[in-house]
Amino acid sequence: MSAEIRFNNLGLTLPPVSAPVGNYTSAVQVGNLMYISGKAPSPVDGVMPKGKLGQRYSTADGVGFAHSACLEVLAVLKEKLGSLDKVVQVVDLHGSINAVPEFEQHAEVLDGASDLLSAVFGPAGAHVRSVIGVSSLRNGVPLTIKVIVEVRE
Amino acid sequence: MSAEIRFNNLGLTLPPVSAPVGNYTSAVQVGNLMYISGKAPSPVDGVMPKGKLGQRYSTADGVGFAHSACLEVLAVLKEKLGSLDKVVQVVDLHGSINAVPEFEQHAEVLDGASDLLSAVFGPAGAHVRSVIGVSSLRNGVPLTIKVIVEVRE
Amino acid sequence: MSAEIRFNNLGLTLPPVSAPVGNYTSAVQVGNLMYISGKAPSPVDGVMPKGKLGQRYSTADGVGFAHSACLEVLAVLKEKLGSLDKVVQVVDLHGSINAVPEFEQHAEVLDGASDLLSAVFGPAGAHVRSVIGVSSLRNGVPLTIKVIVEVRE
Repeated sequence: MSAEIRFNNLGLTLPPVSAPVGNYTSAVQVGNLMYISGKAPSPVDGVMPKGKLGQRYSTADGVGFAHSACLEVLAVLKEKLGSLDKVVQVVDLHGSINAVPEFEQHAEVLDGASDLLSAVFGPAGAHVRSVIGVSSLRNGVPLTIKVIVEVRE
Repeated sequence: MSAEIRFNNLGLTLPPVSAPVGNYTSAVQVGNLMYISGKAPSPVDGVMPKGKLGQRYSTADGVGFAHSACLEVLAVLKEKLGSLDKVVQVVDLHGSINAVPEFEQHAEVLDGASDLLSAVFGPAGAHVRSVIGVSSLRNGVPLTIKVIVEVRE
Repeated sequence: MSAEIRFNNLGLTLPPVSAPVGNYTSAVQVGNLMYISGKAPSPVDGVMPKGKLGQRYSTADGVGFAHSACLEVLAVLKEKLGSLDKVVQVVDLHGSINAVPEFEQHAEVLDGASDLLSAVFGPAGAHVRSVIGVSSLRNGVPLTIKVIVEVRE
């Protein structure tokens, strides 16, 4: 089954591609690798989420943020490639979680993104991963993720 | 001299490959690049180390953790490639150290991993590196490292 | 216009290539990708900057540090490649800012590096980016950046 069909079957909607927050671009392809810029979750009712996990936000909130940030990445891929079916393999997912020093649920949170990649891309969604807890992020967003994928040349 | 021979001469033992902590995979190869997922140190007497450098753990402890996490990476490489001799070049090592805000010995700590890569791979172990101090990590582990290597296609 | 000509027109001077802070190397090329090790800003009057943004240093200081760290990266590229014109495309810029937990101006700070890449490389300077706020860095430096570029093989 194709990634486009799987995505449609999930009943999800891609957000509009969010603008880079600074003097950079959303994606760069070199050979068959496509790097996508770090993405935060989408705004909710027009307002960007702001705050730390373990303080303002719960682990369950974080799972939702990871899912949302992953949809932001998929929106970039769709725009740049024309179709999610051009993704050969998800390669790397790096998550940075804005959290209090006592936070420990990073793996559970980032599965919000990993589960979506798996649901959309199937076996091609299996990726390597790393996740850290950071003390601050741009504009106070609760989480950012960064993705590298292999694409058809 | 081969990496396998160098490793055996060091008198070290590879740990069993630890399971991914979440919905992802241990390694992905694209072309001649192999990405390995972030790895924490091995359990000690069946218990995962937990705590921050500059608080529960010393810099010397950290050097040992970096060495241990690097063995975890080597165990993945051995499993995926069959032999450490399939590594053409270690490319990139990124370290995230769970530390108090006053911590400054990141370089010394990460040499625990870099020295092992150098001892095992010789000139092919020379890698680029970055290291940061983070405020939290999954399950409170003191350190994670992430590695990219070039392999024979 | 070439990157070398653009750089000269900016009236800037490359610093000497700073030594790796640990057992690693400044750059590794694999295929047409060149990875450069994490770089801090240059010393000022022989002294390395030390301190956190939002505490000892302002956002404006941070912009200058990002600019300076980017010059450190360019110095490595110049040494390894012989000429900045060998850079086909800047691929990835990752910034780690040593900051207090309340800091939010990461994007503004990292534009100090992104703006320089854009000024030197023109359209080939458009890169993907991620930036995080960390609680500590080696020797207390206020910021490090890490860069990947595509080069002519």
